[in-house]
Amino acid sequence: MLVSRRDVEISWGDCDPADIVYFPNYFRWFDTSTSHHFATAGLPKRELIRRYNVVGFPMVDTSAKFHVPSKHGEMVTIETRFPRFGRSSFDVEHRLLRGETLAVEGFEKRVLVQKKEMGDGMRSFAIPQEIIALFSD
Amino acid sequence: MLVSRRDVEISWGDCDPADIVYFPNYFRWFDTSTSHHFATAGLPKRELIRRYNVVGFPMVDTSAKFHVPSKHGEMVTIETRFPRFGRSSFDVEHRLLRGETLAVEGFEKRVLVQKKEMGDGMRSFAIPQEIIALFSD
Amino acid sequence: MLVSRRDVEISWGDCDPADIVYFPNYFRWFDTSTSHHFATAGLPKRELIRRYNVVGFPMVDTSAKFHVPSKHGEMVTIETRFPRFGRSSFDVEHRLLRGETLAVEGFEKRVLVQKKEMGDGMRSFAIPQEIIALFSD
Amino acid sequence: MLVSRRDVEISWGDCDPADIVYFPNYFRWFDTSTSHHFATAGLPKRELIRRYNVVGFPMVDTSAKFHVPSKHGEMVTIETRFPRFGRSSFDVEHRLLRGETLAVEGFEKRVLVQKKEMGDGMRSFAIPQEIIALFSD
Repeated sequence: MLVSRRDVEISWGDCDPADIVYFPNYFRWFDTSTSHHFATAGLPKRELIRRYNVVGFPMVDTSAKFHVPSKHGEMVTIETRFPRFGRSSFDVEHRLLRGETLAVEGFEKRVLVQKKEMGDGMRSFAIPQEIIALFSD
Repeated sequence: MLVSRRDVEISWGDCDPADIVYFPNYFRWFDTSTSHHFATAGLPKRELIRRYNVVGFPMVDTSAKFHVPSKHGEMVTIETRFPRFGRSSFDVEHRLLRGETLAVEGFEKRVLVQKKEMGDGMRSFAIPQEIIALFSD
Repeated sequence: MLVSRRDVEISWGDCDPADIVYFPNYFRWFDTSTSHHFATAGLPKRELIRRYNVVGFPMVDTSAKFHVPSKHGEMVTIETRFPRFGRSSFDVEHRLLRGETLAVEGFEKRVLVQKKEMGDGMRSFAIPQEIIALFSD
Repeated sequence: MLVSRRDVEISWGDCDPADIVYFPNYFRWFDTSTSHHFATAGLPKRELIRRYNVVGFPMVDTSAKFHVPSKHGEMVTIETRFPRFGRSSFDVEHRLLRGETLAVEGFEKRVLVQKKEMGDGMRSFAIPQEIIALFSD
């Protein structure tokens, strides 16, 4: 299973008056890591959207556990994998590491969606086998 | 149990290229609703920090389920309650409503923390009974 | 000339480790005030986009002067006006007030744009007289 | 005069429904580039705060000119320099490049501040000559 890694340098503006990362920013970084994971597999999000006529991969549900806070000026690493594919949904796991320490864990369930041909809604889209294959070994 | 409500008008900049709310913003709004819930109970966050010498109530874990997307220009309502208090932790539930529709559900486990007297770490702080009493009927 | 007003309550997550508003958030609020000014005039952004087939009103240049910092838990008011319309551009002035005190001034030059019929660029769009009329007395 | 460079990869969540960078994010990136410029000169922000007992370098005024929009998935480079030091203020210039193209220009006037010994205000702080020297050749 493909694992991708991405470094994030924590900025002053990512932190709150307690001088630690304001937690919604972790979700922003995890979202970017999910896109980065697609790019690492050879399918950048812009290419995915164009080639498969999808709108994106909106979130169904997400959660995070915060073990250790981080501060501005620090560098952290996010490790990302897709442990499971369903028909149109897939799971994402993120591990944010501060040195050797597991600082934050993130989980996402997402679904691949297309624009409906009529109206302005969206509908789920069966994930092509060739996409799934990109993330296995 | 105290329930507070807060309206949020969705801005252009809250939305992503799929023209729906970029999901980390829900966590930002839920965080503000938690602070607003304290203020509704008569204890604004700034007052809580000063009176009890706490740093804040950092997140231990959080999750959200996304049922229906929302778009810029729409008004949504967030309903917030604290269903459970532990020794130093407390749970938060948010329901984001788009009209009558439950659009997003949020859950938070937080812990009240103080600065350590020595060093620059933080430590949990037993929630005073008088604070808990503010959120019952 | 139409003047609109909008209150903003400053959240914990809007502030940085110096415990004052992280300045890019002022630009976010000013942007929302510009959209709110259109809505106050009877033309919400979503309606403007649909009725005139525009993409939006991207920024050409913007600036801000910061006189007094603000803190979480405070309520501020933003006053907005459009002092000048050009062929396809217009100017915006924002005054952010903390009580009676002028805390931040913002200026924007924006241009109304449409999607090009061919390719994926954008092009400026002459502002219809009926739109300009909405903002005079 | 020291010039520093920093690459920024544009994320999905940095972009708005027009599928271009939501402009307040440029100010966030420029702010990080200013901190990065201090770090490049050998004085990371956290070290500056500790060594000189300052709160930070809040913005007095800032402006930006937007020449060319950028999109998610693109990599841009920000070049930063400090063209002028005053007694307690300094100027910052940022050039955001998309390949060879100057896409956005940013300007900042900032002031170095310390906490007042009494009360909770801040006061400007004369920039030590040894700090200024870090940014000359």
